[in-house]
Amino acid sequence: MSPNELSAGEALHRMRTGQLTAQALIEACLECIHTREPQLRAWVTLAGEQAIAAARACDAQPRTGMLHGLPTGVKDVIDTAGLATEYGSPIYRGHRPQADAACVALLRAEGGIVLGKTVTAEFATSFPGATRNPWNPEHTPGGSSSGSAAAVAACMVPLACGTQTSGSVIRPAAFCGVVGFKPTFGWLSRQGVKQVAESLDTLGSFGRTVADAALMAAAMARRPTLAEVVPAAPSGLTCVRSDAATEGQPEVWEAIETVLRRLSAVGVKVDRQELPSPCEQLASIHPQIEHFEAARALAFEHQTARADLSERLRDRLDHGLAQPEAVYRDALATAERCRQSMARWFDVHSLIITPAATGEAPKGLSTTGNAAFNRRWSLLGLPCITVPVMRGPKGLPVGVQLLAPWREESRLLAAAAFIEQQLAAQA
Amino acid sequence: MSPNELSAGEALHRMRTGQLTAQALIEACLECIHTREPQLRAWVTLAGEQAIAAARACDAQPRTGMLHGLPTGVKDVIDTAGLATEYGSPIYRGHRPQADAACVALLRAEGGIVLGKTVTAEFATSFPGATRNPWNPEHTPGGSSSGSAAAVAACMVPLACGTQTSGSVIRPAAFCGVVGFKPTFGWLSRQGVKQVAESLDTLGSFGRTVADAALMAAAMARRPTLAEVVPAAPSGLTCVRSDAATEGQPEVWEAIETVLRRLSAVGVKVDRQELPSPCEQLASIHPQIEHFEAARALAFEHQTARADLSERLRDRLDHGLAQPEAVYRDALATAERCRQSMARWFDVHSLIITPAATGEAPKGLSTTGNAAFNRRWSLLGLPCITVPVMRGPKGLPVGVQLLAPWREESRLLAAAAFIEQQLAAQA
Repeated sequence: MSPNELSAGEALHRMRTGQLTAQALIEACLECIHTREPQLRAWVTLAGEQAIAAARACDAQPRTGMLHGLPTGVKDVIDTAGLATEYGSPIYRGHRPQADAACVALLRAEGGIVLGKTVTAEFATSFPGATRNPWNPEHTPGGSSSGSAAAVAACMVPLACGTQTSGSVIRPAAFCGVVGFKPTFGWLSRQGVKQVAESLDTLGSFGRTVADAALMAAAMARRPTLAEVVPAAPSGLTCVRSDAATEGQPEVWEAIETVLRRLSAVGVKVDRQELPSPCEQLASIHPQIEHFEAARALAFEHQTARADLSERLRDRLDHGLAQPEAVYRDALATAERCRQSMARWFDVHSLIITPAATGEAPKGLSTTGNAAFNRRWSLLGLPCITVPVMRGPKGLPVGVQLLAPWREESRLLAAAAFIEQQLAAQA
Repeated sequence: MSPNELSAGEALHRMRTGQLTAQALIEACLECIHTREPQLRAWVTLAGEQAIAAARACDAQPRTGMLHGLPTGVKDVIDTAGLATEYGSPIYRGHRPQADAACVALLRAEGGIVLGKTVTAEFATSFPGATRNPWNPEHTPGGSSSGSAAAVAACMVPLACGTQTSGSVIRPAAFCGVVGFKPTFGWLSRQGVKQVAESLDTLGSFGRTVADAALMAAAMARRPTLAEVVPAAPSGLTCVRSDAATEGQPEVWEAIETVLRRLSAVGVKVDRQELPSPCEQLASIHPQIEHFEAARALAFEHQTARADLSERLRDRLDHGLAQPEAVYRDALATAERCRQSMARWFDVHSLIITPAATGEAPKGLSTTGNAAFNRRWSLLGLPCITVPVMRGPKGLPVGVQLLAPWREESRLLAAAAFIEQQLAAQA
């Protein structure tokens, strides 16, 4: 196995035991990028030379940080000091922030190395970047964290970070066959992250294992206990139909049934439930909140560089400005009631399993896929993770999504790692 | 009355009816700044020439925007495109952001003119800037939005904006004798505003009247209905002792009694209550949340420019990094329970009146005063406003603070305007 194919955990272990250097790891990643990037187009900016220099410095130092010597990809809506940060928009071509975003400063403080900036849809919304699906270049990798998901899937880096407003972590991770983890709303500081909708935007992480995604998030938050993932069966697993109005493809339900069967076989109590009734409104109020807030968060660009926005985003911002305040105000109040009723619902349920996306990654690069199975979870602010399960009819990855109550990241990760272990044992 | 002494509402009226030009208004403001700034030191950066050019452009255009031709002061933790934004820290000396913060873009879109950047405490925390109290230069103007409060009080501008994490809008407004308004947590987009603590940071506005402060906030949020303030007696007014552990000076209670007497005289039902018992914990959990989050939000500066932080802030960030995650997690859960219990408390109470600060502005410039009467309100996220009421024993202004339930800005402003009207009638 080439070093770039190792999990972050295994690479750290080999570096600690002197079997691998940070420099050799970065060089293997760069070699992989050299080979696959021309087709995949996961990166906006690479910082190969700086990364090799940082790796050499790591190799010369005692190993202390959580990410010591590990290369990472940073979604290009997240500021990096002195490294171009373009937010997926021509408006910011060549823009160099003066400071790292908080999560980048924290991952660097843990010895993580920024290998480059990964492709994002325009301002982390829906107009896609150039990235292709690593399993079939004619298919979307999902978005908006397209480059981060694809780069991790293609073993260009072991770890990457992204953001989710609708489904921008979970969906691309599922489409690319990697683990995507979005902690509770507010769990990671958004200082230095370009806003879309402040009530929804949440940072997340990508890895090829549950433990890796947890490690990356733990470092970005400086919350080391999160990285101590011990696989543990959940006390129960409740399958929730993800969206009343959308069916989903058979493969996403097959993936869920696979997990339910396996966990049931080892004694986990599984059941099927609907969400509390107010939650039916979540899918329709999500865009009311997103558009209203995005029209304000992106006011500078909307005012001063209208012609450089995609027509899709411009229409959305125009719509957000035209939307009555009362609609937005009511939507927020409804969301809050739903969050409270979900908190009570979780008094008698341990963990949700639901599709991560509506199917395999669709063919074509003009959209990043359907977020219907993601929006209401983002609006509820629940911590969620996707774990790859199988291949669909077109040979593309299919994952499941797991959700826990607010701030129950540890419970979520323990169960996800258990499921990952069970699936590996079965395979 | 010189044009710079007019309220924003009156200046707009005169501009609309051809009695005043935007240029004359800006020039009067600059004249006032020329006279008073050497002692007051409210500004970090002035953009006089650009402001005059913008005023001329306004005068040549049809009057459409909510702030058409009005000069404003912008707290220097809020990004302004092409105008230095230093966050109250030598780390960012001369820093020029590429984009306006969302609130600045929106106020410019409404015809507001940025006259300059106002002094802030270091990163909107507690190490003070150079500003002095306009009523007595030996006293603090309060902080962290020191320059915005002082500039509005001194008639250097009719309007300014600021941010509050503990008491950084309400306290300086009260100390300087102006209206300070902090809407519900999350009401104004924080895109382009330097973070301190993401669960607490809230934008706010300053004016010399309730209607002016409302107008400024309405423009910064692009929520025009907020600007339609019609004075209306509240259905009831409940006096809440502000902090169990802190007495407060007699003058702040005298100000409250003045308002209670006056409203009672016109038929408003007044009473005295304590908050629901879990809220007693708010004062102690506020710093747990603030320090934990600030240590992450300011990670880049803490890592790369430690020597350029004040000792006070460095200690706070060190403390925030050392604080156990479980303490922070529990504090957030408690805050959430308190927010829910306050929502129920407001089912039977209309409006809170409580001190805006512990007394008149204290003598000396080494601190910005005590936030004990502000922290728990900030943590509850309630919309609040301070209205000047009287002079204290040292001749400095004393205000009261009013609070309404989440997203009941209109109710709050209507009552505040009514109280302002009643006090003026009495005076």
